[in-house]
Amino acid sequence: MVMTQSTLRMAVAPDLDGSATEVARAAGADVVPLEQAEALAWTVSDRDGFPDPLPPGVRWVQLPSAGVETWLADGVIDRDRTWSSAAGAYALPVAEHALLLLLAGVRRLPACVTATTWAKQALMPELGTLQDASVGIVGAGGIARALIPMLSALGARSLAVNRSGREVPGAAMTVPAEDADTVWRAADHVVIAAPATPDTRHLVGRHQLELMGGNGWLVNVARGPLIDTEALLAALDEGLLDGAALDVTDPEPLPDGHPLWTHPRAIVTPHIANPQVTLRSGFHQRLADNIERQLAGIPLLGLVDLDNGY
Amino acid sequence: MVMTQSTLRMAVAPDLDGSATEVARAAGADVVPLEQAEALAWTVSDRDGFPDPLPPGVRWVQLPSAGVETWLADGVIDRDRTWSSAAGAYALPVAEHALLLLLAGVRRLPACVTATTWAKQALMPELGTLQDASVGIVGAGGIARALIPMLSALGARSLAVNRSGREVPGAAMTVPAEDADTVWRAADHVVIAAPATPDTRHLVGRHQLELMGGNGWLVNVARGPLIDTEALLAALDEGLLDGAALDVTDPEPLPDGHPLWTHPRAIVTPHIANPQVTLRSGFHQRLADNIERQLAGIPLLGLVDLDNGY
Repeated sequence: MVMTQSTLRMAVAPDLDGSATEVARAAGADVVPLEQAEALAWTVSDRDGFPDPLPPGVRWVQLPSAGVETWLADGVIDRDRTWSSAAGAYALPVAEHALLLLLAGVRRLPACVTATTWAKQALMPELGTLQDASVGIVGAGGIARALIPMLSALGARSLAVNRSGREVPGAAMTVPAEDADTVWRAADHVVIAAPATPDTRHLVGRHQLELMGGNGWLVNVARGPLIDTEALLAALDEGLLDGAALDVTDPEPLPDGHPLWTHPRAIVTPHIANPQVTLRSGFHQRLADNIERQLAGIPLLGLVDLDNGY
Repeated sequence: MVMTQSTLRMAVAPDLDGSATEVARAAGADVVPLEQAEALAWTVSDRDGFPDPLPPGVRWVQLPSAGVETWLADGVIDRDRTWSSAAGAYALPVAEHALLLLLAGVRRLPACVTATTWAKQALMPELGTLQDASVGIVGAGGIARALIPMLSALGARSLAVNRSGREVPGAAMTVPAEDADTVWRAADHVVIAAPATPDTRHLVGRHQLELMGGNGWLVNVARGPLIDTEALLAALDEGLLDGAALDVTDPEPLPDGHPLWTHPRAIVTPHIANPQVTLRSGFHQRLADNIERQLAGIPLLGLVDLDNGY
């Protein structure tokens, strides 16, 4: 239950450079020590030094990550107070990275980057395009809403899969999770953008990879465990798809010597879809928005739902 | 002067697989041997076997390339008949490649592609984004019209330079060629998309690179000689810009051992912005459109203007 309030006593921690404190103040919060706070803005994605236990006076915690699955799994996020994440705050940079990974795969950029000779004739017949392609987006939330207009501008169609099947604006088709096979079958390429929950673990396994039918790229900008890595490696070796471009892996960090590092059909980026510059600006924006919402009695953005698990 | 006509006798050459002949017929042409033809559809970008001299009965030649500068320089294109190119027919795939090159540079994809260890911490502070960036597009024709909506979807602004300064739809600013410095100064990144003419040779030299002011990526999807390669190499070494991503080079093909192949700030792709699949579909579309236009008495698309040089 959120009520209009005239002041908000918020602790901001850790805040080495003072910028988050400044954002909180500008949005209307009184920045106070934790013991006097009714809200806490936690500014870093790791949990070292997170107050344990939280003072009972803290009724709301704003976290800086979009995905909070480890905070949930470890029981840090409780039902005693309101928790909000930055889910959706980084949708644009993450969609940008998904688009880069997809284009880099379809247009064989790794072969170009490592070449030291003009291999035009060998490359030309290998190259694809997103023009007239259909791209499945599995887990169609904020990232999908940012990605779909990018794909449209490139002349590609988006096929969305979400929990409810409720139509996603700009998608040529939206299906509920239980009908995801339809999209795996119809799409040329698939982007994974779903939250990590117990339900979405190994969302992509042998069955889905077989439905890709011998070509197309699989892109993951969500969380590593959504893909069964062993099944993916086998599928890549068998040529069930053209390739996989992964910003997140399982295990993560991907250990030295892992076959994905050197697989000719794999592109790996080290969980950088949301670079420092947008991590900072996106979190600050979310913090300011939620302070203003809290003061105005409007529901917070990125409210963590313990029943959905994100 | 184009007049409505009820038939069009067109030769199609070379057409090994018969597909261009089929397209021409479907669009309403009578496909005939060259000696009886009033029009010629030339289907390959190289000139080996191009009829020399052309029978005087051939009043119109449709070429498959977007840029026809070598045909002009060598005097093949004459004032005795109408010549049309495929300028604009490949705008979407070329813009797609420009976007890939720009994103790959800004997000340091080459470092990821060659990595065999999880270098997240080292990479994060290096990474940029197109969100809130401004991208100059020098030579704002068809490629720019395709690229601008892509950039808009990514949250970037487009700053256009064209010959006339006539406003380009969707651009935040359009300036005429003589004011290009304004864009070189204001833009974070610059994409070169101008035709190759005697006027545009070395359009990018020391002066323009200095205006980039220490960061940003330069992308070339037009023609190699638009950039002074020696000036670019010096600027890259001095750090006048973050990097250059080039689909076209001067010399081209880029010879083995050229410093651009291994320069840490350079990405080279071997003139593949327009892959085989879109080269074919784009040319067929242009051929069909122009046959229909010729029959309807509507001005042809991609009409070569000998005075403009493209």
